[in-house]
Amino acid sequence: MEISNNAWVLISRPKEYFSSENVKLTQMKIPKLSVGEFLVKNIWISFDPTQLNWMKRDTYVKKIQIGEVIRSLAVGKVIESQNEQFKVGELVSGVFGWQEYAISNGLFVNHVRPIESVGPPWYSLSLFGITGMTAYFGVTEIGKVKEGDAFLVSSAAGSVGSIAGQIAKIKGARVVGIAGGQKKCKWVMEEAGFDYCIDYRTDNVSEKLSEVFPDGVDVYFDNVGGEILDIVLSKIKQNGRIVLCGAISGYGTMNFQPLRNYANLISKRGRMEGFIVSDFTNRFGEAYKNLYLWLKEGRLKQKEEITDGLENAPEVFKKLFTGSNFGKQILKIADI
Amino acid sequence: MEISNNAWVLISRPKEYFSSENVKLTQMKIPKLSVGEFLVKNIWISFDPTQLNWMKRDTYVKKIQIGEVIRSLAVGKVIESQNEQFKVGELVSGVFGWQEYAISNGLFVNHVRPIESVGPPWYSLSLFGITGMTAYFGVTEIGKVKEGDAFLVSSAAGSVGSIAGQIAKIKGARVVGIAGGQKKCKWVMEEAGFDYCIDYRTDNVSEKLSEVFPDGVDVYFDNVGGEILDIVLSKIKQNGRIVLCGAISGYGTMNFQPLRNYANLISKRGRMEGFIVSDFTNRFGEAYKNLYLWLKEGRLKQKEEITDGLENAPEVFKKLFTGSNFGKQILKIADI
Repeated sequence: MEISNNAWVLISRPKEYFSSENVKLTQMKIPKLSVGEFLVKNIWISFDPTQLNWMKRDTYVKKIQIGEVIRSLAVGKVIESQNEQFKVGELVSGVFGWQEYAISNGLFVNHVRPIESVGPPWYSLSLFGITGMTAYFGVTEIGKVKEGDAFLVSSAAGSVGSIAGQIAKIKGARVVGIAGGQKKCKWVMEEAGFDYCIDYRTDNVSEKLSEVFPDGVDVYFDNVGGEILDIVLSKIKQNGRIVLCGAISGYGTMNFQPLRNYANLISKRGRMEGFIVSDFTNRFGEAYKNLYLWLKEGRLKQKEEITDGLENAPEVFKKLFTGSNFGKQILKIADI
Repeated sequence: MEISNNAWVLISRPKEYFSSENVKLTQMKIPKLSVGEFLVKNIWISFDPTQLNWMKRDTYVKKIQIGEVIRSLAVGKVIESQNEQFKVGELVSGVFGWQEYAISNGLFVNHVRPIESVGPPWYSLSLFGITGMTAYFGVTEIGKVKEGDAFLVSSAAGSVGSIAGQIAKIKGARVVGIAGGQKKCKWVMEEAGFDYCIDYRTDNVSEKLSEVFPDGVDVYFDNVGGEILDIVLSKIKQNGRIVLCGAISGYGTMNFQPLRNYANLISKRGRMEGFIVSDFTNRFGEAYKNLYLWLKEGRLKQKEEITDGLENAPEVFKKLFTGSNFGKQILKIADI
């Protein structure tokens, strides 16, 4: 059968932040499958800030080429297969992109595990995907969070931040989040169970932080970089750890608000460390098992916004950089 | 016996850098020893940049109070004792200050070990003191230098930097230093045996660094902070490590040149970590043993400038912040 595929391709590189003019919805033919390949019909598409980097420049992975489909994770169903490991009808997750159909040879593709009893299949894109793995290893391995730690996380209502805070809480830390707006802060405290949430839109972050953590911060899980990171650097405790998970505040312009307080890392023997979740691939099983258990016990809350229709991909993606997103952003483009 | 003691006391706090007007040479009486105390006659006084911090503000230790003797390490001889562990005639090192005589109860005081065959007693203030320990643990524990690493160190002709580079070389790294001026660079390459030395006064540091380490830097041992740290952040390799040992460039004004390139720590999974050598106190024996061995084998070169006379303390101290120091600064104020 010959299928016509709607796909968003990159036609120009974002200068600062992403604009809808950087991409174009294009119709293309799906070629015939070779041996070892299979065809996936995308159902849920994932949005992550790092996709902006992929559009702009080579980083830890090669940038998306002009004319290529926008790269993203997705969950879909195998509808045709020349690969024995991926059978027609199975749900799979992989880097399938902003498009209706994707051809794969199975590289970096996983089966969606039977977790229907605790969460929908698209949890493979959030809690049981890169989002959850990032939160898990950032908190446990880079942050080395332990009982009684003063733990702070920015983008606390965001996909990674909200899970990171909840994991820290499970590990026995006192957990404070930073988020924008009353609605988000309310969710962070009441639903995600954080001890407190600082609203950066109305609170003086520096003063509020000194109030809630008068002795300073043991672990800061940083999702934003810039000004807030610099404030926290001035308030880290001895042997404090800063987990650099992202720097959304700088993704756009690359004019990062510069850091002035890094000398505190010397006198406080602090550590600031970046990481990429793919370095922990061989331990995903351990993370998955724990997250699954915690979710089943009702100790992890997941917040999502699901939008319908492939045509809305650019609009949903833009929300990641304006603070108007609330929880994991998922685009649903087909029925299961 | 009643001894009159000449001592430099703090009379005002340095605003930015140290000025001779911040201290005053004062004569004071030495009180009678209590049981457990002993009297030390200072011979060699050590100068370290962190003394400026001690004059200015509370950091990892309490600041020097107005009217107190300037705190510093020194090597001296016990000339009177009410303490069985420290006998008259023994050479000891401790925090004895910018003065002729010091009373001690033995806290943080060490005997100068019999290493005369490989170095003079004041090596207890440099290679076998805080300087050597800082270089050793910075390179091995924080930097985790291994065979083949591209290792960069700033203040490469300074006391810590020159030893750090030589240790990295012994560990099998390719070692490049940054220093100011031809004379220092020549010593760094020809005497200390570095593979190359960048002269920050005449070279474009960023361009030169890309030439000597085209694939980037594995470990940067940072003694200066500021602009050079920011340049190196833009050139670190995957899993690069930055050892924050000091930030002399910022000690004065506390207006640290801000860091813009820290986001590179994320995509490169880099780590930037401060440390205080006192965290490794229980392992000083191991460091001492290795440094002793390397020195004996002729694999470590130590550069020093020895000035005579207590009256010159302020002038020698100032040199640490103008780049006119070359090697460890020692003040000799009495004969052994």
